[in-house]
Amino acid sequence: MEKISPLGAELRVALDGSFADRRAAVREVFPSERMHRDPTISMDEARQYTLERLGVLARAGVAAKGFPRGADDPADPIDVLVAFEALAYGDLSVSIKSGVQLGLFGGAVVNLGTARHHDAYLNDIADLRLLGVYAMTEIGHGSDVSSLETTITWDGATGEFIVHSPTPSATKTYLGNAALHGTMAVVYGQLQVGEEQHGVHCILVPIRDAKGRDLPGVTTGDNGHKGGLVGIDNGTLTFDHVRVPRTNLLDRYGSVDEDGTYASPIENRNKRFFTMLGTLVRGRVCISAGAGLAARRGLSIATRYALKRRQFEAPGRPEGVLLLDYLTHQRRLLPGIATAYALGFAQNALNETLVAINTGAVSGEREQRELESFAAGLKAVTTRFANDVLQTCREACGGAGYMSANGLTLLRQDTDVFATFEGDNTVLLQLVAKGLLGNYREAWGQLDNVGTAVATARLVGRAVYERTPARSVIDRLVATARRTPDQVSVLNRGWQLWMFSERAEHILDSLVQRMRAAKNNAASNGTVNPFGDHMIAAARAHMDRVILESFVAGIEATQDPVAKSVLNQVCDLYALSVLDADRGWFLEHNMMSPVRAKALVVAVNQRCSDLRPRATALVEGLGIPESWLNSEMLRDA
Amino acid sequence: MEKISPLGAELRVALDGSFADRRAAVREVFPSERMHRDPTISMDEARQYTLERLGVLARAGVAAKGFPRGADDPADPIDVLVAFEALAYGDLSVSIKSGVQLGLFGGAVVNLGTARHHDAYLNDIADLRLLGVYAMTEIGHGSDVSSLETTITWDGATGEFIVHSPTPSATKTYLGNAALHGTMAVVYGQLQVGEEQHGVHCILVPIRDAKGRDLPGVTTGDNGHKGGLVGIDNGTLTFDHVRVPRTNLLDRYGSVDEDGTYASPIENRNKRFFTMLGTLVRGRVCISAGAGLAARRGLSIATRYALKRRQFEAPGRPEGVLLLDYLTHQRRLLPGIATAYALGFAQNALNETLVAINTGAVSGEREQRELESFAAGLKAVTTRFANDVLQTCREACGGAGYMSANGLTLLRQDTDVFATFEGDNTVLLQLVAKGLLGNYREAWGQLDNVGTAVATARLVGRAVYERTPARSVIDRLVATARRTPDQVSVLNRGWQLWMFSERAEHILDSLVQRMRAAKNNAASNGTVNPFGDHMIAAARAHMDRVILESFVAGIEATQDPVAKSVLNQVCDLYALSVLDADRGWFLEHNMMSPVRAKALVVAVNQRCSDLRPRATALVEGLGIPESWLNSEMLRDA
Repeated sequence: MEKISPLGAELRVALDGSFADRRAAVREVFPSERMHRDPTISMDEARQYTLERLGVLARAGVAAKGFPRGADDPADPIDVLVAFEALAYGDLSVSIKSGVQLGLFGGAVVNLGTARHHDAYLNDIADLRLLGVYAMTEIGHGSDVSSLETTITWDGATGEFIVHSPTPSATKTYLGNAALHGTMAVVYGQLQVGEEQHGVHCILVPIRDAKGRDLPGVTTGDNGHKGGLVGIDNGTLTFDHVRVPRTNLLDRYGSVDEDGTYASPIENRNKRFFTMLGTLVRGRVCISAGAGLAARRGLSIATRYALKRRQFEAPGRPEGVLLLDYLTHQRRLLPGIATAYALGFAQNALNETLVAINTGAVSGEREQRELESFAAGLKAVTTRFANDVLQTCREACGGAGYMSANGLTLLRQDTDVFATFEGDNTVLLQLVAKGLLGNYREAWGQLDNVGTAVATARLVGRAVYERTPARSVIDRLVATARRTPDQVSVLNRGWQLWMFSERAEHILDSLVQRMRAAKNNAASNGTVNPFGDHMIAAARAHMDRVILESFVAGIEATQDPVAKSVLNQVCDLYALSVLDADRGWFLEHNMMSPVRAKALVVAVNQRCSDLRPRATALVEGLGIPESWLNSEMLRDA
Repeated sequence: MEKISPLGAELRVALDGSFADRRAAVREVFPSERMHRDPTISMDEARQYTLERLGVLARAGVAAKGFPRGADDPADPIDVLVAFEALAYGDLSVSIKSGVQLGLFGGAVVNLGTARHHDAYLNDIADLRLLGVYAMTEIGHGSDVSSLETTITWDGATGEFIVHSPTPSATKTYLGNAALHGTMAVVYGQLQVGEEQHGVHCILVPIRDAKGRDLPGVTTGDNGHKGGLVGIDNGTLTFDHVRVPRTNLLDRYGSVDEDGTYASPIENRNKRFFTMLGTLVRGRVCISAGAGLAARRGLSIATRYALKRRQFEAPGRPEGVLLLDYLTHQRRLLPGIATAYALGFAQNALNETLVAINTGAVSGEREQRELESFAAGLKAVTTRFANDVLQTCREACGGAGYMSANGLTLLRQDTDVFATFEGDNTVLLQLVAKGLLGNYREAWGQLDNVGTAVATARLVGRAVYERTPARSVIDRLVATARRTPDQVSVLNRGWQLWMFSERAEHILDSLVQRMRAAKNNAASNGTVNPFGDHMIAAARAHMDRVILESFVAGIEATQDPVAKSVLNQVCDLYALSVLDADRGWFLEHNMMSPVRAKALVVAVNQRCSDLRPRATALVEGLGIPESWLNSEMLRDA
């Protein structure tokens, strides 16, 4: 049994937030034998291990928890989220294979299919008897789904659909389960009925027979070895006039009847398209959660190592001087831990938002869009963080960090592509920025002067906590700090929150002004989207604000006074690190004096020093039992 | 044959600098068949491939070029550098195996041994008949060589040395060639003769017989699978009272005669120690060069892909809109290319400095220390850059970047540990800072007031270009800019140089002041080296300055006017990117107005846009033939 300190236990409850009971329950039943793959096995062996291991997790009731089993079985959105996240305790190939099978393939059948598909397939999908492929991405079309080339053509003569890849660039690629294990695919393509084009729809296409041979007209390919996630059999699919029955169309949002008549419950074609892409939102929420857990694993390994590795003996220090006693080492790891907490609280908020919409507790187009923005933004920020911090952790363990047996390198390699799949981070941040700009247009479309724009900005990005008690706490803290801006310390939470929101709003304002001004100027010199970097800055600043506000909300909800006080210091370290990293912006916009800007790094160092004695408890709070870390050097030391 | 544009050819000549002829010659003869390892092969196969491939390179006259063959054969330091660097065109495991064999093991025999060792071993080392291990690092002692525990004890009774590992933490570890191929090791240990301790010395110890079995008293171990460089057989060595002949001591700087009398040409024990560590300097110079080349390979792949990948068709653009037409994509890759050029020029300067000292053209303790600082600093900066930019390149190629066949992931994984071996980067930067602080003490040790400290700073860090014509050009540019600081543009080279040097000097000044003030203050709260982060900032700022000045010197030496003009824009992009990233510092020290700070990002974007049409030539200038890039997506597209 795992033994952790009382403070560690309280921090874990706080960080697990409203999902604490379910997360604790999953930790209890998670099967930890062979939970990590041997890095020396071949690609073929890794693929086999991944499938077997997913089976173990499915049989243990972890993998498919919450996944519906038929038309009358409702999904439990919380269980689905908690289960996917928990898979990231172990091998990430298994985690992603589950995401492909249950989240993407299964999710498309659940959300885009109707009762007949649910009854026919869901049980077999949950129990891995039917392994599936989510065939969206094409060689020529990664981020631009509306331009997919694959066609789904109605043949009135036979009452079938013909699925076809008209060009080489229409080849579906990077599809998990496509190279080896999948026997059926959800294929995204342009639906054509007679002369009419109905846009992107999904259809179920059997691709392999029971012996694993390609079915007639289907060509599967293998993407081969990758930089990580070697256990996932990514591959390609092309279709040469493959005929499938009419009923294979996932027809919840668009159906063709026996007479060839198209019908959809959603009139607006654009809206229909985005509704069908709804699967991606949950995918992004899940990837963000998985990346967050991967980062916590790395931080747990590197910090526990830094607490064991003695650099030299010293008088008056019975443990000697440990790696984590060095300021430089504290600066490498402790702000990372603080960010992991911050992102954990934000992930809780995102999960709650998704659950509220999935269960219908919250509805509305604006709310749906807010969720999409939040998911896209947090996925981009968390996967960026995971990549960066895992590299830092590897380096912080020196040569030992490079040895596969110590558990960091595989984690780093597997997490790498999280920055790309389920939406490239650069594209996702631009999506967030477009959402913010959309809020502008919506609220103040008719007006056009600078004063108005500034006023508008104050309305943007508040939705996440609009309906929670934390909102009023945040507003009160900010209001107090604003009354005496020169007298508050950089440790004042209200001041920190104010700086985060001012920056987010100001960057967006100036983006709007530049875009308006550009309309009247000459054409650019050939550079496409000259505002791209500005949009990304706006999105990041917005996300930073949402994350800090989530942290404050998480602290508000924490009961234990000691945990609360430690979390307040952790929150300082997160907020101060962000402010310090972008202090150039605050200085050039006269929102901070040079004296105050210089005080930031001093305060960061102080908080590192304050939190050093809490390091073990902080790592325990991250929620990963030490014995699951798969790190030889921790066992040896 | 490689075909490149005239501008690309001129840029390559400029970047190859004073080594242009030799570098071009190596490119001519480099054997390019099987130059990259198949990522799917097992660790055992990779180790075998690495050894075989190193043999190919040795037989082609590339690997051991410049390496001496006996006591009367002088090394050619330029050839040694150019050869090692060239190996990084291919598989990096091969490159590092060569570094272990010829640079570290062979280098120790060359530099620490005497004629008898040279005649006995160098020929076999160069031809790989004698494979060796460089046994310095111990489990308990990574960065702290002076505390090594292994003992080399003189036994007067038999006239032998006894090599011994007294504790588990004395186990030698992470040693290339130790797990499998090495038959002899250069072992670092504490020399004891009778009652006397003479500090760290090196001795040759046979470790395996011809059949690969451990020799009596020697235990070899295998570090196993790693996060990269899987072709290197890193392992461990422990010694249980292993007896070796007296003549095995590498005795150039410390010998024991038949009567057990110790003698050394270097009286001062500390100085002797650092002289013996001199091998590490060349190691760091080489690792820096290898990392620089790895970064160029990644940038070449990602940029060529971004010039082939069409995002969509557009009227008036026959090629369509390419990935590199997006500002966001330009911002991901072009500043990286600019930095690769900057580091290339700095590497040339470092190589020249090493050659000057190796050939005796320059001598003196201060010059030796300057070289050590320069090597440590550039190794830290270049390996950091390589890691970061290779990750950026991977992400910039999206899913394709993650496929091993496209050549980026293995490169990224292999380069990872460059940040750690031959000196952990954090430790190396602190070494640079200590060197800078030492300069202070040396010049002004007696004086102690603030005014003096500032005056001193002006003397620091100028040595690199002190003796070159570029120095006066730089001084003149700075002097001109300083006369009218408010009127010069951010594109003014003198202003940029001035900002770089002001920052370097000011950070060092404030570090000195803080350290002086701390002497009079209470003890710290347990944090070790509370100035660590400040020291690292001082070292980085110093290196940034050295790198920019090297760039300016490189441009000065460029003959072709078009290449010169393009390099000036590239230099802007490098300088502006550095200034923009740290504009917070300049603002808080009142060295830049907010208006000027905001102008930086505008200028960065402008230079990206200016250089976009030169992208192919810029990549050609980086010096890696397209056919060597090992990237399937470039062949397909």
